[in-house]
Amino acid sequence: MAQSSFPCSGLAVNCGKVEEVENQEEGTTRKPVIEYHGIDQVLVEEMVYEALVWSSLHGLVVGDKSVQRSGKVPGVGLVHAPFALLPMPFPENQWRQAVELTPIFSELVDRVSLDGKFLQESLSRTKKADAFTSRLLDLHSKMLEINKKEDIRLGLHRSDYMLDEQTKLLLQIELNTISCSFPGLSSRVTELHRNLLNHYGEVLGLDPKRIPGNNAYSYFVEAFAKAWTEYNNPRALVMFVVQAEERNMYDQHWLSAVLKERYNITAIRKTMAEIDAEAELLSDGTLLVGGKAIAVIYFRAGYAPNDYPSESEWRARLLMEQSSAIKCPSISYHLAGTKKIQQELAKPDVLERFLDNKEDIAKLRKCFAGLWSLDDPNIVKEAIERPELFVMKPQREGGGNNIYGADVREALLRLQKEGTDGSAAYILMQRIFPTVFQTFLLRNGICHKDYAVSELGIYGAYLRNKDNVIMNDQCGYLLRTKISSSDEGGVAAGFAVLDSIYLT
Amino acid sequence: MAQSSFPCSGLAVNCGKVEEVENQEEGTTRKPVIEYHGIDQVLVEEMVYEALVWSSLHGLVVGDKSVQRSGKVPGVGLVHAPFALLPMPFPENQWRQAVELTPIFSELVDRVSLDGKFLQESLSRTKKADAFTSRLLDLHSKMLEINKKEDIRLGLHRSDYMLDEQTKLLLQIELNTISCSFPGLSSRVTELHRNLLNHYGEVLGLDPKRIPGNNAYSYFVEAFAKAWTEYNNPRALVMFVVQAEERNMYDQHWLSAVLKERYNITAIRKTMAEIDAEAELLSDGTLLVGGKAIAVIYFRAGYAPNDYPSESEWRARLLMEQSSAIKCPSISYHLAGTKKIQQELAKPDVLERFLDNKEDIAKLRKCFAGLWSLDDPNIVKEAIERPELFVMKPQREGGGNNIYGADVREALLRLQKEGTDGSAAYILMQRIFPTVFQTFLLRNGICHKDYAVSELGIYGAYLRNKDNVIMNDQCGYLLRTKISSSDEGGVAAGFAVLDSIYLT
Repeated sequence: MAQSSFPCSGLAVNCGKVEEVENQEEGTTRKPVIEYHGIDQVLVEEMVYEALVWSSLHGLVVGDKSVQRSGKVPGVGLVHAPFALLPMPFPENQWRQAVELTPIFSELVDRVSLDGKFLQESLSRTKKADAFTSRLLDLHSKMLEINKKEDIRLGLHRSDYMLDEQTKLLLQIELNTISCSFPGLSSRVTELHRNLLNHYGEVLGLDPKRIPGNNAYSYFVEAFAKAWTEYNNPRALVMFVVQAEERNMYDQHWLSAVLKERYNITAIRKTMAEIDAEAELLSDGTLLVGGKAIAVIYFRAGYAPNDYPSESEWRARLLMEQSSAIKCPSISYHLAGTKKIQQELAKPDVLERFLDNKEDIAKLRKCFAGLWSLDDPNIVKEAIERPELFVMKPQREGGGNNIYGADVREALLRLQKEGTDGSAAYILMQRIFPTVFQTFLLRNGICHKDYAVSELGIYGAYLRNKDNVIMNDQCGYLLRTKISSSDEGGVAAGFAVLDSIYLT
Repeated sequence: MAQSSFPCSGLAVNCGKVEEVENQEEGTTRKPVIEYHGIDQVLVEEMVYEALVWSSLHGLVVGDKSVQRSGKVPGVGLVHAPFALLPMPFPENQWRQAVELTPIFSELVDRVSLDGKFLQESLSRTKKADAFTSRLLDLHSKMLEINKKEDIRLGLHRSDYMLDEQTKLLLQIELNTISCSFPGLSSRVTELHRNLLNHYGEVLGLDPKRIPGNNAYSYFVEAFAKAWTEYNNPRALVMFVVQAEERNMYDQHWLSAVLKERYNITAIRKTMAEIDAEAELLSDGTLLVGGKAIAVIYFRAGYAPNDYPSESEWRARLLMEQSSAIKCPSISYHLAGTKKIQQELAKPDVLERFLDNKEDIAKLRKCFAGLWSLDDPNIVKEAIERPELFVMKPQREGGGNNIYGADVREALLRLQKEGTDGSAAYILMQRIFPTVFQTFLLRNGICHKDYAVSELGIYGAYLRNKDNVIMNDQCGYLLRTKISSSDEGGVAAGFAVLDSIYLT
C-alpha cells in the first residue's frame, strides 16, 4: 500500500469513449481538507477488501483488457472498474451551482441546435482544418437542405467542471452532447461509497449523508422510456450504437437492463457497420434494423474518427439521421457540443442570441473559463510567452490530445509558421489549477496511495416534443479522480478512477 | 450453439468445496417434459446474452482459474458462474416432500450429535480404514473426555436428492453438515431465471411463478445473526474459516456482505493456518483471533484431508472446538453428516433411537436409497454380479471419488483380496437413474446445448440454545445440473452448472 507509479495512459477505463480527465493540476502539495492518508493502514486494507467485494457483487465492473474476449462477450474477463476508495471533498456551494447550471446548458444546446446557420458558420474554418468535423458538417448541411425537422429531441449531456484552487471558481471544462459515459458505473461508485461510510463513517468522522445521491442511470433510462413513449410505436425498440469492442460495456448494460426491467422496453446493440448492413428506411421515415422499428437511437459510438473506418459507417450515420427515430444526439446536438462552439458561446453577446433569461446567462458566464480562438493574435502571443497558463485543445472529441506546458509554445509557433488553416483545429483555454487531495486509487485489485485532482461532470437529461419540454433535469454526476503530479508527461499523467463527492 | 463435448472435471466450480453432482444418469434418451431444444436459436442467443449480462451486473460470479490472483484478491479475474440458461422441470409433489424433510433431518442431526457413543461406535471400523475420519474421531473423543457441552448449536445443512426416473421416488444422495456451498450463488441463479421468464416466459410458455423462491443466503445470514445474538457479546465477530485460495469466494461474500448490511455484524475470513497463528483461548472459553472475540465459526474449509496439510490446521481445529464459540458445525455435527452414519441410520430401527414422531420417521425412510455396509456379504456378492446397480462411495467428503460400473466390481474384488479393513472406508449405495432433460449450459461465456440430469439440494438452518429451538427452517435450494451421457468416464462425465427448478 505504498505510493507508487506505473506506466499508464491517463484514461479512466482504457476502452469505450476515451475521456481523459483534464490535466490541470500543478505539483505543489497543499494541506488537504480530509487527511485520508492518516487513516490507519489496517482499516484501509479492510475497506479496500470490502470495496473490491462490493464491486464484484454489484456490477461495478469492466472488461479486463488482458482477456481477449472481454470486450465482446459479456460475463467473461471481468475486473472491478478503477475507483477511488473514498469520496473527494467538494464545496457544497459549487456543487449546487453545478446542479443549477445543468438545465440551462441543456436548454442552450437545444436552442443552438436549431440555429443551423450559426453552427455552420462557427465551424466553417474548423471544417477546413479538421476532416472529421468536416464530415459531420456535411451531414448537417444535408439535413438543412432537406429541411429535416426533429420534433422530438432527446439530449443526454454531461457538463464537466473543475474547481479552480485559487479563485474557488467552478469552471467548465467542456460540454459533452454525445456518448457521455459512466451514467451506469458512476451511480454504482456513489452507492459503494455510501455503503463504506455506513460501516466506517463513524470511525472516519464522515457522514454518508454528505455524499449527494447519484442515480444517473435511472434518469437516463427514464429519458429513454419517455422518448420511446413519445415516438408512440409500442413495437419499436431502443438501439444502442456501440463499438465492436467495448470493455466499458457494463456501464451501458446497466442502462439496457434497467430499461427492460422497469419499462419492459428492449434495447438492441448494433455497431455502425451492422446498421449499414441491416438497416432500411421506410418511406414514412421509420428506421428498421433487422426488420424491427427503432424508436430511439442512443450513440455510444460515432463521436470520434476511429468510429468511422470506412464509408459504411458514414452511410449508417446518414441513414439514421434521415430517419424519424429519436436520435440521442441528432447531428445538430452533436455539433452544438464541439469545443469550437463552446468557445464561440463564450464570446461577448453570443449567449444572448439563444437565451432570454438574464440571470441564466449570468450563471452560465460565471462558469466559463477563458476560451479563445487562435485568430486572436494577442492571446496567441501571451500563450507563447506564458504557455503554463493555457491548454491547447483540438477540435476532436475524446480527450488525450490536449497540449500543455512548453508543448503549447512549440505547437503555436509551428502553426504560425505553417499558416492559418491548421490553427482552426484548435482552441486555447485558460489552464485551471484544481485543489490537490489525498486519496486511495484502486485498479486491478491494487491500492495506490497518492495525491489527486478531480473533475466533476453533471449529467443532464433533456426531452422535448415540439413546444412541450417533457424532461429537463440534472440527473446524477460523474467524478473522475486522477493522480496529480508536478510532471505532465509520461508516467506522471497517471490514471483516472471513478469517484464520488463528499460535500464540505 | 451446437452440442459439444469438452475436457472437464465434472465439478460445478473447480474450486472451493469440491461437490460432484452424482453420476447417476444412464444413456438412453427419453422424451423431455419441456422441449428446450426446440426454442428458436435467435431467441436462445438473445437470452444467453441477457443472462450473461445479468450475471455480471448481479454478482453471479466466480474467480476465473486462468487468472492467477482470482482465488485470493476479490474484484480481479472474475467470470460468470457456470449456470443453466433455463430452470429444470421438477414435479411439485416431490419438491414439497423435499421441503418437508428438511426440518426433520436437521432435528435428526442434532439428536445424533448428542449421542457420542453412537458416533464413535458406528465409525469405529471406518477409523481404521480412513486416516482423516480417524483424526476427526480423535478430536471428538477429546471433547467427550472433557465433557464439552455445546449449548448453542448451529447447523447449516444441505440434503441432496435425486429423482429416480422409474419409480419417481425422491431419494437422498447425502446429507451435508459442513461447508455446504452455493447458498449465495444459487439464490442468484433463481433470480436470474425468474428475470428471464419475466421477459421471455410468455413466448416460452413458462410461468415465472412456477420457480420456487430461493433465499438461501438470506436464511443463512439470519441464522448467523441469531446465533451471534445468542452468544451475546456485542463486540464479537463471525469468522469464516476459508481455504487460502478460493475461487468460489463470491458465494461466501454474499453471506458476509449481507450480514454486514442487514445486521451490521462483521465477518472476518481466516485460514486454518492463520487461526493457528493468531488465535488464543481465554480461560472462560472465549476464542480470540487477532485479539477479537469470535461468536460464530462458519467452516467453508476443514471438511477434507487437503485442508489439513500440517499439524497447524489440526491444532486450529482443536482450539476452535474447545472454545465457547458457536461452531457451524461442531465436530459432532460434522461426524453426523458422514456417509457411514447415513448408512447406519438407514438400518432398521436406528432412526427410532433418535426420533419419537413415527410420521417423521416414515417420511425420512421413504427417501432413503438402498445403503449398505461392505460387511454384508450378500450385497457385496450382488454388487459384484450387477455393478451397474450400485455406487461405491468412499467415506471421504468432497465427491469426485465415487466408483461406478465395472470399477465397482473391480474395487470390491480387490478389497476382498486385501482383507476387511479397507472395505470399512466405503459404503455401497443403490444407483439412481434420474430423468434426462434437454438443457442449455453456460460456461465461460459459451453455451452448450445438451442433455442433462439434476441433483436437488435443500438447505436447512437449525439453531437451538439448550431446549429452545430458535430456527429450524427449510431455506432455499441448490439445483446442480450436469451433462448426461451413456459413458461414465472421461469427457462424458461432463460438468455441473447452477440451476433452479420449474415446478411441473
